[in-house]
Amino acid sequence: MSDKAKIAVDAMGGDHAPQMVIEGLAAARVLYPGVRFVIFGDENVLRPMLASFPELDAASDLVHTDEVVTSDCKPSQALRRSRQSSMGLALQAVKDGEADVAVSAGNTGALMALAKFILRTMPGIERPALVAPVPTLRGESVMLDLGANVECDTRNLVEFAVMGAAYARTVLGLSRPTVALLNVGVEELKGKETLREAADILKQASHIPMEFVGFTEGDAIGAGAVDVVVADGFTGNIALKTAEGTARFMGELLRRAFGSSLLAKIGYLFARRGLRQLREHLDPNNHNGGVFLGLNGLVVKSHGGASAEGFKTAVITAIDMVEADLIRLISADLPDVPGHEEEAGAA
Amino acid sequence: MSDKAKIAVDAMGGDHAPQMVIEGLAAARVLYPGVRFVIFGDENVLRPMLASFPELDAASDLVHTDEVVTSDCKPSQALRRSRQSSMGLALQAVKDGEADVAVSAGNTGALMALAKFILRTMPGIERPALVAPVPTLRGESVMLDLGANVECDTRNLVEFAVMGAAYARTVLGLSRPTVALLNVGVEELKGKETLREAADILKQASHIPMEFVGFTEGDAIGAGAVDVVVADGFTGNIALKTAEGTARFMGELLRRAFGSSLLAKIGYLFARRGLRQLREHLDPNNHNGGVFLGLNGLVVKSHGGASAEGFKTAVITAIDMVEADLIRLISADLPDVPGHEEEAGAA
Repeated sequence: MSDKAKIAVDAMGGDHAPQMVIEGLAAARVLYPGVRFVIFGDENVLRPMLASFPELDAASDLVHTDEVVTSDCKPSQALRRSRQSSMGLALQAVKDGEADVAVSAGNTGALMALAKFILRTMPGIERPALVAPVPTLRGESVMLDLGANVECDTRNLVEFAVMGAAYARTVLGLSRPTVALLNVGVEELKGKETLREAADILKQASHIPMEFVGFTEGDAIGAGAVDVVVADGFTGNIALKTAEGTARFMGELLRRAFGSSLLAKIGYLFARRGLRQLREHLDPNNHNGGVFLGLNGLVVKSHGGASAEGFKTAVITAIDMVEADLIRLISADLPDVPGHEEEAGAA
Repeated sequence: MSDKAKIAVDAMGGDHAPQMVIEGLAAARVLYPGVRFVIFGDENVLRPMLASFPELDAASDLVHTDEVVTSDCKPSQALRRSRQSSMGLALQAVKDGEADVAVSAGNTGALMALAKFILRTMPGIERPALVAPVPTLRGESVMLDLGANVECDTRNLVEFAVMGAAYARTVLGLSRPTVALLNVGVEELKGKETLREAADILKQASHIPMEFVGFTEGDAIGAGAVDVVVADGFTGNIALKTAEGTARFMGELLRRAFGSSLLAKIGYLFARRGLRQLREHLDPNNHNGGVFLGLNGLVVKSHGGASAEGFKTAVITAIDMVEADLIRLISADLPDVPGHEEEAGAA
């Protein structure tokens, strides 16, 4: 089934676009030879690049647009004037049923705003959320919301938990992922009221294929203590970036440690194989592919700084989402959330 | 002046108390031979331990109490029944002017509650905050609030910035530390309204010896981009614990990398000196000593899991705070916050 996926691609978004986009698509196509691409962007630049990858070229339709969403474009600006951009057209292709999923490495805020405007939220979902895998000691967990919603209420958090669990079943391949709310302590009385209320609701949601385990703390993320870490978009964004920053900081200290003396350099040579595995495990390009959950259509967000390898990972995530029929999975779970069906009906 | 400091010590708080407390005090006394200690705890246990350190013994008064605040004690419980505990009595000694500062490695929530009740907040300060140094690529920054206040308003954040800057001048030895609010983006329009309002006020606070630089993001903490990172207690706690968890996770991956083969083990032997520096830089025992800011008295919180070395670091922090007269520093800055004096006067 994955071989039938049709992927709308914003070729112009990302720090190293469009070169890394085209190379990433070519690499993904080798793994999934039946997948088809609709590529949006500047034909004059893209045509010669595609010529270097004849098999990708044959599997792709190229749709020209001059318009690009810049990295400093505000969401409100994007809504006003970027509907015809490579990003906007890729989302429109999903809306029109011409593609199963859109992939972009462009401006996150603009992508969120355009996706919400063009695709709209799913029935019963108040706010979409951005979810992504994070590396842990046990492999990978997933975390959401990573910044789509700065302020969240109880209902948003409950929806994020249900959507995150569906995503984890797809991406992590688990039948019943563990889910927890990120808090300042694991005791029931800790933290904000919205978190306690969301926990009370999720405790009753035992029909959903997930294991709600209560609260988790910041230091449990790296340990991989739970499969799905749920937070409001402000907290999730701070936690994700703090983890990335700490990993970068330690990587730099490590680089300095190995450069500090001739002996240390020799040590590096001996240990480099083990260290390469460490680096690969932490490389953001190997964990690329955030997904906007809760929309009437699949949208995958690649890191802006992704390499071709990273963009390939994002495309594979997109194919996985199509294959798993993620939107149907989420729709199927939502009515099982206590009190949710009535609320959604009333809204 | 530091040689005259008198330190009230909760000898019973912390995972490895009281042994690490006594050993930590003995090590600190060697560095500051004129400092005096008032040690609160179980005489039957402490008397024989002190006998092993005759010089510490001579510099200390031992005050017996049977009562101990346990690690699972709730703040409300501590307030009801732990006033006569080793923790409560140490705080009371500061209140009564019998000591200049209290140091405890015990239960944070209980310490905060008891400290607030016994010492009260400074005139003009609405809420105390927990601040601590964090290791960065540039050395150390300080971050607050680390969990004393789950919900914060604009005024709280402004007070935290001013208090954090005074602490950074003392601990980091900077005359004009850079200060930023932790947010999901650096642009002025990003994040929560309380953050934007606090930024507007802090921009005008140019008389205070600090450089307010606006917003900072989670990944800038490890880079050491600013000296003082200001957040509400929920966000600060999540960021601190996420950073600690990520560092632990990477340390474990590194341990595995070096244990993965004989070659890797040989590599470790060559590189161990550089790696030891890395470990020392990250060792929480070298960055120990959170301080409760905003009370009518100095209170230093050691990590609960601190070793003797860590407790020594916390005691040195306490001596530094006394020497710098931190409370006076904060009091001197507060009236310079725009709109603060009137507010404080009206309250």
